[in-house]
Amino acid sequence: MEIDAYVDQLTANARAAARKLAVAGSARKDQALALLADGLLADAQALKAQNKKDLDAAAQAGLSAAMLDRLTLDDARIAKMATGVREIIALPDPVGEVLDGWERPNGLKLHRVRVPLGVVAMIYESRPNVTVDAGALCLKSGNASILRGGKESLHSNLAIHKVIAKALEQAGLDRNCIQLVETTDRAVVSGLLKAQGRVDVVIPRGGKGLIKAVVENSTVPVIKHYEGICHVYVDEYADLDMARSICCNAKVQRPGVCNAMETMLVHSSVSKEFLPPMVEQLHDAGVEVRGCERSIEACPAIGVAATDEDWVTEYLDLTLSVRVVDDLDAAIAHINNYGSQHTDSIVTQDYSRAEAFVAGVESACVFVNCSTRFSDGGEFGLGAEIGISTEKLHARGPMGLRELTSYKWVAHGSGQIRT
Amino acid sequence: MEIDAYVDQLTANARAAARKLAVAGSARKDQALALLADGLLADAQALKAQNKKDLDAAAQAGLSAAMLDRLTLDDARIAKMATGVREIIALPDPVGEVLDGWERPNGLKLHRVRVPLGVVAMIYESRPNVTVDAGALCLKSGNASILRGGKESLHSNLAIHKVIAKALEQAGLDRNCIQLVETTDRAVVSGLLKAQGRVDVVIPRGGKGLIKAVVENSTVPVIKHYEGICHVYVDEYADLDMARSICCNAKVQRPGVCNAMETMLVHSSVSKEFLPPMVEQLHDAGVEVRGCERSIEACPAIGVAATDEDWVTEYLDLTLSVRVVDDLDAAIAHINNYGSQHTDSIVTQDYSRAEAFVAGVESACVFVNCSTRFSDGGEFGLGAEIGISTEKLHARGPMGLRELTSYKWVAHGSGQIRT
Repeated sequence: MEIDAYVDQLTANARAAARKLAVAGSARKDQALALLADGLLADAQALKAQNKKDLDAAAQAGLSAAMLDRLTLDDARIAKMATGVREIIALPDPVGEVLDGWERPNGLKLHRVRVPLGVVAMIYESRPNVTVDAGALCLKSGNASILRGGKESLHSNLAIHKVIAKALEQAGLDRNCIQLVETTDRAVVSGLLKAQGRVDVVIPRGGKGLIKAVVENSTVPVIKHYEGICHVYVDEYADLDMARSICCNAKVQRPGVCNAMETMLVHSSVSKEFLPPMVEQLHDAGVEVRGCERSIEACPAIGVAATDEDWVTEYLDLTLSVRVVDDLDAAIAHINNYGSQHTDSIVTQDYSRAEAFVAGVESACVFVNCSTRFSDGGEFGLGAEIGISTEKLHARGPMGLRELTSYKWVAHGSGQIRT
Repeated sequence: MEIDAYVDQLTANARAAARKLAVAGSARKDQALALLADGLLADAQALKAQNKKDLDAAAQAGLSAAMLDRLTLDDARIAKMATGVREIIALPDPVGEVLDGWERPNGLKLHRVRVPLGVVAMIYESRPNVTVDAGALCLKSGNASILRGGKESLHSNLAIHKVIAKALEQAGLDRNCIQLVETTDRAVVSGLLKAQGRVDVVIPRGGKGLIKAVVENSTVPVIKHYEGICHVYVDEYADLDMARSICCNAKVQRPGVCNAMETMLVHSSVSKEFLPPMVEQLHDAGVEVRGCERSIEACPAIGVAATDEDWVTEYLDLTLSVRVVDDLDAAIAHINNYGSQHTDSIVTQDYSRAEAFVAGVESACVFVNCSTRFSDGGEFGLGAEIGISTEKLHARGPMGLRELTSYKWVAHGSGQIRT
C-alpha cells in the first residue's frame, strides 16, 4: 500500500475508534485491559518466540548488550507488563471528571468536563513494553492510539499487538482503539507528524535525537521533554548529612534516567565543610566529579575541572558537575540559565530560603529537602506515567492519565439568548 | 538596529522582566494597572492626537470605513479601555493558586501551584485597544508580553505604550513587563515566531490569514482558533419557539463574530413546521438562507441551494446554511465532520438527546437550549478574555487569566531519598 494511503487509513481508523471510545464508559475499557493482562500471560510463549526473532536479528546486527537487554522479553518482564496493565485498571478514569462549574446570573449552568484528547501518536524506541504501557494508558484515558515502536522490536510489537487487538474485540471495543504501525518505513512517521487535525498530539519517547527530530518535523502539537539537567542546591543552612544523602541518591541510585542530578550547587560558606566527605562518597560510588575553580579549591580531591559545557550536559551516567555559588540568588540564576526546567531541589533548614527557591526556580518540579529522583508519576501517586513534560503549555512534569485529557465547556440553558 | 539583535533584545528584556514579575505579587501588579487606567484618561488628548496620524494615513491609503472605525480612538473608547483595565484589577490573581496537593506515604508533601507562562508574544491587527487589553491581562497573570500590533495603528500603539511604561515604572515594576514592537518590519514577527525557549507562547489575534501565517511559521507553541463554524441543532423534541429565538439570536445579534451560528441543522420530523416561520424571520432580519435539498423542500422560501462548500464556510455575515438531518446521530456527525470545534448548541426538551449531544459533539463548547453567542469569556464569568482556543492541548474555549498560566509541582520533604 502507498504510504500516504496507509497514514490516511491509520488516522481515519483512529478517529472513528476515538469517537466511539470517548463515550464507551469505564467498565468496558477496564474489561479490555483485564483481558489484555490475562492475554499477555496466556500468550507468553508466543511473545517470547517472536521476541527471539528480534533478538537474533539484533545480535546479528551487532547491537550493544544494553540494547539487547532493553529489547528482551522474558517471563518476568511479561508478568511485569501484565501487572502494569492491572495497575492502570485500578486508577480512576479521568474522562467525565467535572473540573469546575458555576451558574451565571442569567441561569446558564456552566461546567468544564474532562474529555479525551482524541488521537494520540506515540513514537518510541526499542522497549516492547512501551507498546503495552502506552496503549493501555491511552485506552483508559479514552484516546485512540497509533503506536510506532523501534524497528528492532517489530516482531515483538506485532505479537503484543495481536494480544491487544483480541482483548479489545472481546470487550466489544473497536480494535482500532490501539493500532500498531506495521511497517518500519520512516515515511509513516513523517506522515503522522504532518497529520494536523487528524492526530491530536504526538508523544515521542526516547533519546534526545528522536525527540528533536519529532519536534522539528511535526505540525501536530508535541508533548515532550528533551532532557533532565537536574540540580541539587546545598544551601548554607542545609543539614549537611541530609544534603549528602540526598545528593548521593540523586546522582547514584539510577544515573541513566532524566530525574538524576547532573549538577550540584554548593553555597560558598559550607563548601569546605560539605565537599570533601561528599566527593569521597561520590568517588567511592564510582562517580567522576568535575568542579568549578572554587569547588576544587574547597576540595582538591575533585581533580577534574568543569567547563561551561558541563553546565548544559545531561550525562545520564556516573558523572557530576559541581559549582560553588555565593548565595541563593546565584543558585537560582544558574538553574534557570543552564537547567532544562525538569526538576531541581534545595537542601536547607531555612524557611525563607526554601520558599524563595520554590518561587524563583522556573522548573516543572521544584523540591525542598528530597532527592530529584522523586520526579516520577508513580512516586507522585499519579499511577503509571506516559512521559514527562517540560512544556509550559498543557501538562508539566510527570504525565499520567489526567494529562492525556482535555476538557470541554458544557452549558445547560433554558432558552437564553444574548442581548 | 539589526532585526536579529532587536529580537534578541526584546526577548532578553522580556525574560528578565518575567522572572521578576512572577514573584512581584498582586498588589504591585494591580497598582500598575490602576495607574494605567488613570493614565489613559489623563493622556486622552495625546492619544487622540497620535491616533489622528494613523487615521489620516489610513484614509490616504484608502482603507475601508470599517477598518477606519476599528482604528479610531475617541473619548468613549479611551474610557472603555480604562474601564476594561479596572475590570482586570477586580479579577482574582491566578498566580499562586494551589490546584491540588496531597501527602505521599513517605511523607513528601506535594502540590501543584499556578505559575505564569513566562513570555507571551501577541500578534494582532489594527485595533489599538488590544494593546491595552492584552498587556493588562498578561501583566495580571504575571507574564511579560511582547505586543506586535498592526502597522496601521503604530502611532496609536506607541502613545498607549508610553502610558503603559510610565504606569509600570511608577508602580516599581520593570517597564519591559509590557514591550511594544516599535517597528513595522515583518522580520521581527518572523524572529519572534522562531524564538523557541525565549518566547513561551504566541497568541495571534485577527483574521484567518494572520493566524494561518503564524501557525505555519512558528516553532514556538501557538494558542489559536482559526474560525468559528458554529451550529445550532433543532431537535424533533425542541420547543420550536425557543429554537427560533435561539437561532435568530445566534445568527443575527452579531453576525461578524466567531461565536455566531453559521449552519442550522433541523430534524426532519419538524422541518416543515419549524422552517417556514424561521426562514421568514431570518429573511426579515436580512439573512440570506442557503438550504440543502430537503430544507428547500420543507420551506421553498429558502430559494438558494447550499453546496458542500457552505458546510465549511465561516460567513461572518448575514448568511446562513441550513441542513435537514434524519436524527441526532446525523446532526452530531455533521458537526464533528464539518465544524471547527468551537461552539455548538442543541435545542431539545428531551433529556437523553441533550445528554447524547453533549457527549458526542467534540467541540470546545457544547450548549443545550441557549444561543452560541454565550461562548465568551465575559459571558462565562471569566472576566476579560485574551482569545478563544480550539486547541485540544492546554486551554479550550474562552481564555481568561487562568488560561495564561501554567503550573509547577512543589514537593516539601524532610530528607527523603528514593530506594
